[in-house]
Parts: sequence; structure tokens; C-alpha cells
Amino acid sequence: MKKMILDLVKQGKYSEAREEIISINVVDIAQLFEELEQQKLLVLFRILPKDIASGVFTHISSELQRCIVESITDKEVISILDELFLDDTIDFLEEMPANVVKKVLKNTSVETRRLINQFLNYPKNSAGSLMTIEFVDLRKEMTVKQAIKRIKEIGIDKETIDTCYVIDNNRILEGAISIRKLILSDDSTLLKDIMDTGVMFINTHDDQEDVAGLFKKYDFLVAPVVDNERRLVGIVTIDDVLDVIDQEATEDLQKMAAIQPSEKEYLKTSALLLAKHRLPWLLILMISATFTGGIIKRFEGALQSVMVLASFIPMLMDTGGNAGSQSSTLIIRGLALGDMQPSDILKVLRKELLVSGIVGVSLSAVNFLRIYYIERTDLLVSVTVSFTLFFIVVLAKVVGGVLPIIAKKLKLDPAIMAGPLITTIVDAVALIIYFTTATWLLRI
Amino acid sequence: MKKMILDLVKQGKYSEAREEIISINVVDIAQLFEELEQQKLLVLFRILPKDIASGVFTHISSELQRCIVESITDKEVISILDELFLDDTIDFLEEMPANVVKKVLKNTSVETRRLINQFLNYPKNSAGSLMTIEFVDLRKEMTVKQAIKRIKEIGIDKETIDTCYVIDNNRILEGAISIRKLILSDDSTLLKDIMDTGVMFINTHDDQEDVAGLFKKYDFLVAPVVDNERRLVGIVTIDDVLDVIDQEATEDLQKMAAIQPSEKEYLKTSALLLAKHRLPWLLILMISATFTGGIIKRFEGALQSVMVLASFIPMLMDTGGNAGSQSSTLIIRGLALGDMQPSDILKVLRKELLVSGIVGVSLSAVNFLRIYYIERTDLLVSVTVSFTLFFIVVLAKVVGGVLPIIAKKLKLDPAIMAGPLITTIVDAVALIIYFTTATWLLRI
Repeated sequence: MKKMILDLVKQGKYSEAREEIISINVVDIAQLFEELEQQKLLVLFRILPKDIASGVFTHISSELQRCIVESITDKEVISILDELFLDDTIDFLEEMPANVVKKVLKNTSVETRRLINQFLNYPKNSAGSLMTIEFVDLRKEMTVKQAIKRIKEIGIDKETIDTCYVIDNNRILEGAISIRKLILSDDSTLLKDIMDTGVMFINTHDDQEDVAGLFKKYDFLVAPVVDNERRLVGIVTIDDVLDVIDQEATEDLQKMAAIQPSEKEYLKTSALLLAKHRLPWLLILMISATFTGGIIKRFEGALQSVMVLASFIPMLMDTGGNAGSQSSTLIIRGLALGDMQPSDILKVLRKELLVSGIVGVSLSAVNFLRIYYIERTDLLVSVTVSFTLFFIVVLAKVVGGVLPIIAKKLKLDPAIMAGPLITTIVDAVALIIYFTTATWLLRI
Repeated sequence: MKKMILDLVKQGKYSEAREEIISINVVDIAQLFEELEQQKLLVLFRILPKDIASGVFTHISSELQRCIVESITDKEVISILDELFLDDTIDFLEEMPANVVKKVLKNTSVETRRLINQFLNYPKNSAGSLMTIEFVDLRKEMTVKQAIKRIKEIGIDKETIDTCYVIDNNRILEGAISIRKLILSDDSTLLKDIMDTGVMFINTHDDQEDVAGLFKKYDFLVAPVVDNERRLVGIVTIDDVLDVIDQEATEDLQKMAAIQPSEKEYLKTSALLLAKHRLPWLLILMISATFTGGIIKRFEGALQSVMVLASFIPMLMDTGGNAGSQSSTLIIRGLALGDMQPSDILKVLRKELLVSGIVGVSLSAVNFLRIYYIERTDLLVSVTVSFTLFFIVVLAKVVGGVLPIIAKKLKLDPAIMAGPLITTIVDAVALIIYFTTATWLLRI
């Protein structure tokens, strides 16, 4: 199908391509557009029906959006914007350079321009920047019949009318009612008798992560957004929350891998910017690792007399790092999903002590068997290595389990207390234990 | 509020507590229940209105569910099950021991029992196990008025009637129509003239991760599930997909931290089970790290003559590990979100070479300045360390960027090609380079 359309376009058979295109989903058309030459894409875009063109427009990359807006006439800009939901317009404008924003704003009504400016002022990642203003508002004195009539009049353009909101004369939120309930009720019933008055709402300044948490906890499909005076200003729908959930998980992952978080897709980010996101933490961690090097230097004498000690350093460091990452990953994720609270710190500590005991003893035993019986390492060296291994696993797991919780208590982001930082901390302590034990056991 | 209810219960004022409780959300009641003593909880549960009791029942932990079902009469079991959606019943039964399952099945109708058994047979993590069977089915010959009448008759019990599905006499899916469209249309319009015929559907055996991908790509709120004969058997709603998205992200994170994935919450998992999930990879990685140790042993002579070389090993290993984790994390996440495809491997390779060039040169330069000018390390040693550092960063980033993609091409899970494994691979190669350069430059 896709290949066929691309072939038609290549041969210049635009109207035939158009016929095929309008039968597929706008998301798929948008994907197809990404593969077309700019010239051909513009021809094709202009002959699409207005509603499909707008749908495609919201789903293409911002580079393509920019190229289209720069090439089409002002009249065509208006016709696309007319069909767009306000939140999609905002998303698009946020990515555009000044000249494109100017061209777009010039072509909107005074009222839309006011709304756009208001939206662009909401803090990034707030409920306000996430919401849409397309909803149906009803009054509690209305009958079901009147309500349905109002929905029919204004509803066709609204992004979601599956839930309608009841407000008073000052636009203060009073309740909610689902379309489902409306059509299941008698025509003459008053809304105030069937509306849900205990409706939970979000403030425009709430963080999008908290909004996502509410949706997950209460299985919302949509939630009303109010301003500080409890006036209804918009709604957040679950499909926008879906993106937030992915975005927050990605952000946590990036922080856990010692990268400065960025929302931009990898393939669309320049090498220079990628390097900029990665360098700071690598530098910090590289310099911290010198402390570990300093410890080795301090014990150079011990090392020189029993050179074989050096060969176990990589294994000890790697195992400590891995053991710590396991714990910190589980705790960071648990905190992010709300499965655990900072007050659970003692439970976590107890659990990590137990787990690290089991894991530490097992690893130590396997290691002892291997290096003493198979590799025939000196007995005292084998004991030193195995003891340090046990200790390093316990230390790594306790530090890995507790540090993210402490970070959360200190209102820091737990995600930075992940593998890389834990490894650096544990490495240093572990080497001190290693060499101290060796000095003492091997009398060097 | 919560404290007040807990106090009322403590004082045995159950009916007063009941009045307070029924005004709050069932999710919050369920959280409250987790904090009550078993005896008091049972009293309170039995006096709740039937619909609220069922709502609370679906949201409490499986331990509490079990304790409740074991304590109440068969008649009470029926009354709860009557109010539950089938998919919630299944979720509950999957966690119960045999005696509880028996008690429940004994109390259900033949038809429900058949459905339950059918559901329990769908593969775990398939669309079949995710779907619900509560939906409204319509026929294309119906008028809008007839359709709304049918919804009124059967719709009240359905989990979501925001979208209805049109099927033929063999239950083959023919189209979909939203409630919104129904109420916006004239009473006499035929469904076949307004229904959406290009509706995308899911097969019962599709993997839940693919289902989540479809929902994200097309912004679905609900999607129909069909069997192999394209007969409509259920629907998947977005709130269930939300849980899947979190679950899949958690699973990837666990694999990336070298833990066997588990869906169970950390605090609810025993220490023994946690240890079991963590040990296998730690063991594998510990044993792999011995190769790195073997390399040090092989170069013991070189190390002995220039002992200071040892003190840079931790910094080189850590930086390599961190640089590799950064790349593999970005690539694994990009593959999981569908931002990149295995066919992008050359683009990734090119980008990682560029990024690692920039990052490697910067880190090397800082390191050289620090160890040569500040720590006054020998010039040739400083050159050796800085050259190895550059090389290790490039290697780690290229391996970290490319291995997850190769895993995907080989139909393996990219998430296992994360930090821990990359670190182990890079460490070994890096030490070989380190000592070879040292031997050559320092003539040892």
C-alpha cells in the first residue's frame, strides 16, 4: 500500500495518490510524508481534504511543519489552523522559529491569539500546558434534553465530549456528567439530580507527573483543570497523559544513566548536543574515581609485595557496581510509581540487608571455590578476596537501596542516585576494605 | 478525614464510619482498608453498599481479597461478583489459591464459569488476558434511534459504551461508532451510513506491548479484540493499557540493571525471591570479570615495574562503564518507544562515533591536564592513560550503541545489552589497550 502510494507520487500521479491516501489513518499518512521529497510533499499536502490535512499536520515532525507553513499561503495557514485543536496548535508553535510563529499569529483571530499567549505562559510540564480547552460546559438547572441539545449545537468541534462539566455563572466547577449517563436518563431529568458532584480536579499549575499519577490511581479518562479560583479552564485527556508517562520514564532512565534529560529523539539530536548532555556527569564521575585511584596509590607497597591482589580489582569493582545498580534501580522505580514512600526507608534497609546477605554469601562461596580450588590462588588471598566480595555486595545494596530514598526526603530527584554514582562511592570504600584486610591477613 | 475514619472504626462506631466512607473514592477506601485490623475490616466491608463494596474489592491487595472471600458467606460472594467486571474477576482469581477459586466458581452461573475458564486460558500478557467483554454491539441496519434504545437497555452495565461496535450475524466486526456521533446524528439515520468501517482491531493473541504501541501511535481510547475468524470477542480500554506501559518500562529497567524481571512490588516480595532474581546475572557478570582480572595477571610484569599504572585502573574502568551505559540506555529506550528501528544501525554508529569523539577528546584533555600538570605524573604515563581513556570512551559508546540494535536484529531483548554487560566487555578490551600502550610507550 505504502509502496504503491510512493510510486504514484514518484510518477506524478497526485490525484490517484490522493485517492489512496485518504483511505488510511492520518498517523500513517504522516509517516508516509516523512519519506517524500519536499517538493512532492507540498503538492500532495495542498490537495488533501482540509480535515485530513490538519490531522496529518499535527502528526508530522516539526521540521516538516515548518517547511509546510513557510511554503503555503496565509489563507491556507488559516484553513489548517481552523481545524487544529488549540493544544496541538500550541505544541506546534512551541517548536517553531520566530518568523513562523509571526506568520501564524498574524492569521489568527484576536481571541485565539489571546488564548495562545495564555497557554504559552503556563509553566512547561504543568497541567496548564497539557490541557485542552475544547470541552462542553453545562448548567445544573438544565434538563437532560436541553443538555443533549447544547451538546449537539457545540459538541461537534470538541476534542472529547464523553464527559461534560457543570459550571455556575462564575464558571466555578460544580460537577461532571458523562454522555453515557445523559443518554441513559430520562429527557426531563435535571442535571443537578444526576451529576457527579464529588469530581476531582487539577490545578493549572500542578506538575504533569502528579497529573499522570492521579490518572493512574483513579483510572481517569479525562479530568477537569481549574484555576486558583476553582474556575474551569480546560480538561486533560488520557491520551496526553500517556505521552507524559513515557516521557517521565525516559527522563528517569536518562538521569539513571548519568545523562542530562532531553525530550528530543536521539536520531533528531545533533552529535554536539548529545555530547553536551553526556559530558558533565562523565567529568564529575571521572574526577570522583580518582579518589579510588588514590587509595590504590596509598597501598602501592602492599600491592607490590602481593601483585596478584591487583588482578581481583576489576571483579570486585564490577560486582559492587552491579549489585548496587540492582538495588537502586528497584527503589528508584518503586518511588516513581508510588509503590513505596520515603517512610518505608527502614523496611527497605531491612530487606536489602537480608537480600545482600543471601546474595553476598552465594557469590563469595562461588568465588572462593573458583579461585582457591580451581585457580589455586593462595589461601589467605582467596579469603581476603571472598571476604571483601561479601562486604562489597552488602555495602553496595544498602547504599543503593537507601540513597535514593534519602534523596527523595531531601526533595532531590532519586533518579540521580543510580548505578554510576553508587558505583563510585562503593568502589572507594571497597578498595579500602580490600587492602586493609589484605595488609592484616597477609601481614604486608 | 482518613484519621477520623480510622478513629471511628477504632471506637467501634461502624455506622458513623460507614457514612464518612461512602462519600470518598473507592480507590481511597481501598487504601484505608489496607491499614485496618482484619476483624474490623470485615465488619466494615459487610455493611458497605453493594456497589461500593465491589469497587473497593477490585482495588485492595490480593492478600486482603483472599481474607475477605474466605470469611464471608457464599451469598455475599455472589453479591460481590455480580457487580464486578469480568476482567477484574479474572485478575482477582489469578492471584487466589485453589480453595478460594473453587469457592468463587461454585457461586457463578454456568455461562460465567465458561467465560472465566476461557479467559484463564489466554496467554499471559496477551490482548485476550487484557480485554474486557463488557461492550455494546449494534447492527448496521439499525437506525440511530434503535441504537440508542439498545444502549439504554443493555448499556448500564457495560464498562465503556463511549464506543459501540457494529457486527454482523456471525459476530464478525463490521465497524465502530461513538456515542458522540450517535447523539449528534438524526434519529432516523442508519448506522451503516455513519459508522466508521476502517476500524483497526487487535487479535486475542497479540502481545500486550504491541497493543500498547498501537494505542500510543493512534491515540486510541478503546480498541476491539477479535478472534482468528475476526469475530468480536472483547475490547481493550486505555486504562488497562496505562498499566501495561508502566509494567513494560519497569521490566526493561529491571533487565537493564541485570535483574530478572518481576511484576511484584518490591515491598511485597520476599528477600529470598528478590535474591533469586538478582543472583544469576551477578554470577555471570562476576565470572566474566575474571577475564579482565586475567589480563592484569598477564601484564603483572609491566605493572610491577610501573606501579602507578594500577592507580588509574578504577578511573578507566568506571569512565568506560559510564560512557557505555549512556549510549546503550538511549538506544534501548529509543528502540522500545519505536523512535528508531534496527535499520538505523549505521546512523547510530555514525552518531556514536561523532559523540564519543567529542566526549573522548574532552575527557582525555581534562585528564591529561589533571594528572600531568597537577598530580605531576610522568609524561609518558600521562600520555598512556589519556590515550587509553579516549580509546575506551569511543569503544564503550560504539559498543553500547550498536549491541542493543544487534540484539534486536537477532530477536533478542535489547534491554539485556545494557550497562552491566557493556561494562564487562569494554573493561577487558580497555585493559589490553592500556597495558599494550604502556609496554610500548614506556618500554617495559
